Amino acid sequence: MNGLHLTADLRDCAPSTAALTNVDALRALCLDAVREAGLTPVGELFHRFPGAGGGTGVVLLAESHVAVHTWPEMNAVTLDVYVCNFGADNTARAHTLMNHLQAHLHPGRVERHTLHRGTAP
Amino acid sequence: MNGLHLTADLRDCAPSTAALTNVDALRALCLDAVREAGLTPVGELFHRFPGAGGGTGVVLLAESHVAVHTWPEMNAVTLDVYVCNFGADNTARAHTLMNHLQAHLHPGRVERHTLHRGTAP
Repeated sequence: MNGLHLTADLRDCAPSTAALTNVDALRALCLDAVREAGLTPVGELFHRFPGAGGGTGVVLLAESHVAVHTWPEMNAVTLDVYVCNFGADNTARAHTLMNHLQAHLHPGRVERHTLHRGTAP
Repeated sequence: MNGLHLTADLRDCAPSTAALTNVDALRALCLDAVREAGLTPVGELFHRFPGAGGGTGVVLLAESHVAVHTWPEMNAVTLDVYVCNFGADNTARAHTLMNHLQAHLHPGRVERHTLHRGTAP
């Protein structure tokens, strides 16, 4: 269960970014990013909130999960990429996935954190 | 998008804990915990891995998400509870939810982290 959890909280995303207001575009972006990173999806679930079109979703991975939440009324998005390193070191794949998502959401400001999980003896 | 993200990485969970090997019990535990905490589920997705019965799942919330991954072969579980405080302070609900999940998985050792998200100016 040793793993790597990356978070990115994005602000000032370009309002024209489709994934900010269209949950189908958000799903496609997440699945594309997972594929590019070489990770293994085992299921996905996305939900559209009424109103401004904000969305929330997850791709469950054999390696753990990706989660995304959008707030179009604030041009904001939060991203989680969590991979376990059970059987393989997925560190590089996690960074590829996070970088792909972030690049396609066109943020003006980004707050990122890295948490190494399950490392206690 | 100001929010609170709690993680807990559990080891030495009691092997007899149903949620460790039975994904239906894991789903029920998560939904019970969400209900007890007074948070708002908008969807849920759980997946069972072949072999030892490990599971992975998420409950999407109006307030963000709960994610859980089990490794029965190691008696280990990782938990994520992420709530945004958009419209209400959900801090107490997040702790209630995490404490409920942890208590019902009977861990011997726990590594917890707290991340305050979206707080940068």
